[in-house]
Amino acid sequence: MTIDKNYRDLVEKLTEISRLNGIMSTLSWDQEVMMPSGASEARARQISTLAGIIHERTTDPQLGTCLAAIQKEGFGSLNTLMACNIREAQRNFDLETKVPKRLAMEMAELSSSAHSVWIAARKENKFSSFSPVLKHFLELKKEWAQCVFPDLNPYDANIDNFERGTTMAEITPIFELLKKELIPFIRIIQESEHQPANSFLQGSFPIDKQEALARKISQDIGFEFNQGRMDVSVHPFCGGGHPTDVRITTRYDESNFIESLYAVIHETGHGLYEQGRMLQERDLPASESLTMGIHESQSLFWERMIGQSKFFCAHYFETIRTVFPQNLHGISADSFYQAINICKPDFIRVQADELTYPLHIILRYEIEKGLFDGSMNVDDLPEIWNEMMMQYLGIKPPTDTLGVLQDSHWSGGAFGYFPSYTLGAIYACQFYKTMQNELPDTEKNIEVGNFIPIKAWLNQKIHSQGRLYTPQELVQRITGEVLNPNHFISYLKKKYTAIYQLS
Amino acid sequence: MTIDKNYRDLVEKLTEISRLNGIMSTLSWDQEVMMPSGASEARARQISTLAGIIHERTTDPQLGTCLAAIQKEGFGSLNTLMACNIREAQRNFDLETKVPKRLAMEMAELSSSAHSVWIAARKENKFSSFSPVLKHFLELKKEWAQCVFPDLNPYDANIDNFERGTTMAEITPIFELLKKELIPFIRIIQESEHQPANSFLQGSFPIDKQEALARKISQDIGFEFNQGRMDVSVHPFCGGGHPTDVRITTRYDESNFIESLYAVIHETGHGLYEQGRMLQERDLPASESLTMGIHESQSLFWERMIGQSKFFCAHYFETIRTVFPQNLHGISADSFYQAINICKPDFIRVQADELTYPLHIILRYEIEKGLFDGSMNVDDLPEIWNEMMMQYLGIKPPTDTLGVLQDSHWSGGAFGYFPSYTLGAIYACQFYKTMQNELPDTEKNIEVGNFIPIKAWLNQKIHSQGRLYTPQELVQRITGEVLNPNHFISYLKKKYTAIYQLS
Repeated sequence: MTIDKNYRDLVEKLTEISRLNGIMSTLSWDQEVMMPSGASEARARQISTLAGIIHERTTDPQLGTCLAAIQKEGFGSLNTLMACNIREAQRNFDLETKVPKRLAMEMAELSSSAHSVWIAARKENKFSSFSPVLKHFLELKKEWAQCVFPDLNPYDANIDNFERGTTMAEITPIFELLKKELIPFIRIIQESEHQPANSFLQGSFPIDKQEALARKISQDIGFEFNQGRMDVSVHPFCGGGHPTDVRITTRYDESNFIESLYAVIHETGHGLYEQGRMLQERDLPASESLTMGIHESQSLFWERMIGQSKFFCAHYFETIRTVFPQNLHGISADSFYQAINICKPDFIRVQADELTYPLHIILRYEIEKGLFDGSMNVDDLPEIWNEMMMQYLGIKPPTDTLGVLQDSHWSGGAFGYFPSYTLGAIYACQFYKTMQNELPDTEKNIEVGNFIPIKAWLNQKIHSQGRLYTPQELVQRITGEVLNPNHFISYLKKKYTAIYQLS
Repeated sequence: MTIDKNYRDLVEKLTEISRLNGIMSTLSWDQEVMMPSGASEARARQISTLAGIIHERTTDPQLGTCLAAIQKEGFGSLNTLMACNIREAQRNFDLETKVPKRLAMEMAELSSSAHSVWIAARKENKFSSFSPVLKHFLELKKEWAQCVFPDLNPYDANIDNFERGTTMAEITPIFELLKKELIPFIRIIQESEHQPANSFLQGSFPIDKQEALARKISQDIGFEFNQGRMDVSVHPFCGGGHPTDVRITTRYDESNFIESLYAVIHETGHGLYEQGRMLQERDLPASESLTMGIHESQSLFWERMIGQSKFFCAHYFETIRTVFPQNLHGISADSFYQAINICKPDFIRVQADELTYPLHIILRYEIEKGLFDGSMNVDDLPEIWNEMMMQYLGIKPPTDTLGVLQDSHWSGGAFGYFPSYTLGAIYACQFYKTMQNELPDTEKNIEVGNFIPIKAWLNQKIHSQGRLYTPQELVQRITGEVLNPNHFISYLKKKYTAIYQLS
């Protein structure tokens, strides 16, 4: 039974890598949240040293030998969890070792220089300063795709990096359907005579009160503060070095408490996924979260399906009004619900509501697809962007900074990342619908603030499943069908028809 | 010139080790200050993994080969800084590699299990539960001494670990002199008819005000908050991962602001040492702080020589009274100065004042010496401890928890550490005296809150000198003489004769 020995060796190596990644994650959190500004140079060097060691471990030829020996023996005698660890280890090893050093270095260098080029181009509103970088990254990412997934279309390979197993063949029809349904629906909403008021959401909201409210709601939902923290950073995120050490952040704006509150609910959703990971073998890949899209399904589940629902507003409105009595005097839970759900086309993706958000994503997806298949040129992007914005949302960005230059993703070469946001929203909706069927008291539970059964359901169905299944298998197992955007479309139409009093 | 190549290789290896140590230090800070309690197990494993990698790097045979090649070539052509890096690297390599793996593991295991044994023994006030651990550690540390410094007496080898180059031959006469002078002096003070009042230091001092005051004073003194932080932890300490990322902590007690304030001043002293390290090659050992005793000289310099002086009290008293007006109404700067300098024998070392503190140290030094030379037995320690406490401070601890079991040091095998505290106090006083000669306006400067020349003097004379000299060379270069306890004794006698109105 040399398989046992080989598997034990593998586990030892994977465990070491996982712990080093946990350390890296804690360092990154510290950098965003705690580190004094003067330390940035030294920290960058420390992180680079640690990254070098992690790279050394993940590409260790002995790891390759060990994997090859296990594969050769076959692993019929191993259980599902072991098989999953081996499969994940092999995938990660291939991803790390199939890229020639020259290419890896070129990508790393470009990634580090491109960010400041992008910042400068945004500042000067000058796309032509950024376009050479974008072209360069595109070439590198095509080459990367050829190295790691030679059998895939290059853009599919890049998508696979974030949303494994998902390809354009699956995404394109879904996005086409969303366009067909949402574009005219958003137009109707804009023309509705009933437009919810939201001026009462503007005012002065002391930050300490915002913080206490957000912390209470995060805890109510189920975030375990003895295995996590909540702090402040420039951009909200969920980090931390281990499922027992999950760290969410938000940012506060004295004039707007909705943004920080819903950022906390969103990040709590990510945090619950991490805290809810399977209890055994947490230092091994089988226990890790599945994909970007599934992670986003968890944050959006709590932010949108729960947090932006009328049941949630009904439960928390009195609490919120007590915290900010001057601002919300005379307002009802229902008008609060309507106000936080206003749909309004905007130039900026990260400020978009749940109806217009998918169109921001689809626009980016179609551009990435066009860049990879050669049907679009980088130099034409500003014009293409603005035309698509007109077509999809009826607005035209006055500057490229508010248009094609707004996102940081391309400056890091993260092509194929955007679709995960909307796939996550669709997953979230489909999961929610199944949960409602299995737990018919869900809405009542939300209305009385009992989130325990909801968290338990997500824990059991998703969080604790780790990487045992592909996203496609997981959604099939949980909901009994493949990813189905019709649930998402029905949900949006029903919700917004009511809010905008459409007939 | 293969020396160049070898030296470059050495620098690369040392730099990597330094960065990994910086990461370890940030993780330790996080553990004490930020980490949620539920993460302790996972963090311990991450730290153990990183420690393993640091051990792998520090004992790397290639590092040994590289050092041997440099030593063989001789390094006449290298500058002082380079020579220092080589010397330090050789010492560290020897320290790491001369210990057999079996012994290193036995020490690590004992260290990790002994701490909880000590906690339990303290709780039960039962020295006999702790004594087997102490005996075991003593044997291991004697063996360790034989391995790493076979030419030194075993206790001297343990002292050298913290205070290199300092031996019993130097310490014993100094401590004898301190005993001869301080024991009768403390008795006279206790019998003085004038005993300063300090009841006004008790009361209710809001923690946010304590924090703001401490932060202001730390900044006034010269702590750079863009290259450091100040937070809260159970025990105050100075940590952080780099000279540009120095993190001090304190703890707050609503009923006592003096303790937290002077802890901050003390840790700021440590912090200024780290922030003041030489500007070049900060990832190499030549730039590192010299010894425990020299580090302590810097914290005590600010806490005692500056912070507890009447000039400092004169400058800050109005500020402090403004922060806590109810408590300090009708009190003068001079009575504040006297109150914070009350001398009172106490069972507990960490609560001791500057006059009685050395006797706590001398007691521990004499016990360690006795244990190493065999003139004392572990089993007799409670009795020996209590007898010495009577003899030196005139008080007898009612329990071993308040006596021989009070410190954590022995549970970690840190024999030879205690002397550094009092050597630090003597260094601090000797440095202060020289500074006063070189900067005759020092007292006036303190009185007007101008700490810039003081910090600059310490930066130039001590902080930026790194490890270029031994502590013995450094004190000689700065003060023109060897370590001389007479300055310390004169200072204490003059100060306390005035406070206690002795004739």
